[in-house]
Amino acid sequence: AARLGSGMAAWARAVRGLLLDVSGVLYDSGGDGGVPIAGSVEAVRRIKASGLKLRFCTNETQATREKFVKKLQGLGFDISVAEVTAPAPAACRLLRERSLRPHLLVHDDLVPEFSEIDKTNPNCVVIGDAAENFTYANLNEAFRLLIGMEKPVLISLGRGRYYKETDGLKLDVGAYMKALEYACDVQAEVVGKPSRMFFESALAEMGVPPEQAIMIGDDIESDVGGAQRCGMRALQVRTGKYR
Amino acid sequence: AARLGSGMAAWARAVRGLLLDVSGVLYDSGGDGGVPIAGSVEAVRRIKASGLKLRFCTNETQATREKFVKKLQGLGFDISVAEVTAPAPAACRLLRERSLRPHLLVHDDLVPEFSEIDKTNPNCVVIGDAAENFTYANLNEAFRLLIGMEKPVLISLGRGRYYKETDGLKLDVGAYMKALEYACDVQAEVVGKPSRMFFESALAEMGVPPEQAIMIGDDIESDVGGAQRCGMRALQVRTGKYR
Repeated sequence: AARLGSGMAAWARAVRGLLLDVSGVLYDSGGDGGVPIAGSVEAVRRIKASGLKLRFCTNETQATREKFVKKLQGLGFDISVAEVTAPAPAACRLLRERSLRPHLLVHDDLVPEFSEIDKTNPNCVVIGDAAENFTYANLNEAFRLLIGMEKPVLISLGRGRYYKETDGLKLDVGAYMKALEYACDVQAEVVGKPSRMFFESALAEMGVPPEQAIMIGDDIESDVGGAQRCGMRALQVRTGKYR
Repeated sequence: AARLGSGMAAWARAVRGLLLDVSGVLYDSGGDGGVPIAGSVEAVRRIKASGLKLRFCTNETQATREKFVKKLQGLGFDISVAEVTAPAPAACRLLRERSLRPHLLVHDDLVPEFSEIDKTNPNCVVIGDAAENFTYANLNEAFRLLIGMEKPVLISLGRGRYYKETDGLKLDVGAYMKALEYACDVQAEVVGKPSRMFFESALAEMGVPPEQAIMIGDDIESDVGGAQRCGMRALQVRTGKYR
């Protein structure tokens, strides 16, 4: 136990940056805006005061970063847009690099993130956590576009199975990604956690190498698995969707 | 070519029963009731006149067999309810055998097929081609029930990717089955094509062994693959969803 303790202490001294998942770690989202998880507002404050670098690393795609941050500020969190790594901007970079024009199957409130992107005559589909927008008609429209492409390109903003809202568990984008993958016999390209590139850009934005960073999240695959495959350590909290 | 021809002729003489898929083979379904595929009404008549045994083997689950047959009769087909093998009755047998009480995620018009089944306090989910009933709220409800079960049981009426309606391709139950499989980390039990038991019961109803039967369908997996794994020959038509 003593050896373990001194090992832990040495490890803690080596840590220079934290990546924090948001939903299920800092707050439980919900139709009412959500509620902070006990102690998390104070935890963010203390992490910042300690001099550790901090980055919020979220797969939430139900709002622009601006709206998302405003909501968290309203809940009492010390957070700014510049501290958030989110899938939509990463997707926009990818779309530009490859001259892809997306059909969007996303939440209405996320659409402004793609305002600069050409969406005429789509040659790919971008799917996010569209929630109530996941109607049969909308999923079928995305399906028809994909199956009509010579080489279907499906880009998914995360691959989460579900998340926890204040009124219970909710299906996440990964379930619908799987539906389209199966129907069209394609493999989606995932932007956001657990993609390696997503974690790497969050680390670059902090200026901390993976071996000096810890990812803290509630999803064993998107958060913990993804971070570990990038050479980071990771902790799974027992809040949020943890069961 | 001559040898092939005589082989084909010998094979044709050995055939005593035909299993016919319906959607995409006899007609293209649609909101307007659908339209017969050219020559198919006459083909059914001639098959029956020839003395071959005939069974309609469908995965359609948007209506009771009674409604389905009435629609096809209205299109001119010589068909009766007793000649149809469909997933809902097979699912009811399975539910009774295992004392399962389903939550139904199916088309409104299919519900009467389950009228004799106890649906209180569900311990499984049955998913069919629910079409417009595949709302986010409905899929989420099925997801929550499944993930709340100690041992989730998901029964899927077919596993088709898509089918063709008069106004284009439509996502089939298989896509939504995959969404729930992924979200809950379960494997669905498939009732209907391509399940072996489904073909075997169709053969038993005809009284024809697999080596003397041919399956004719437009789906390479549900129709052709499934039938071949039961020891039948199978033909893929180039109508319906064939691309």
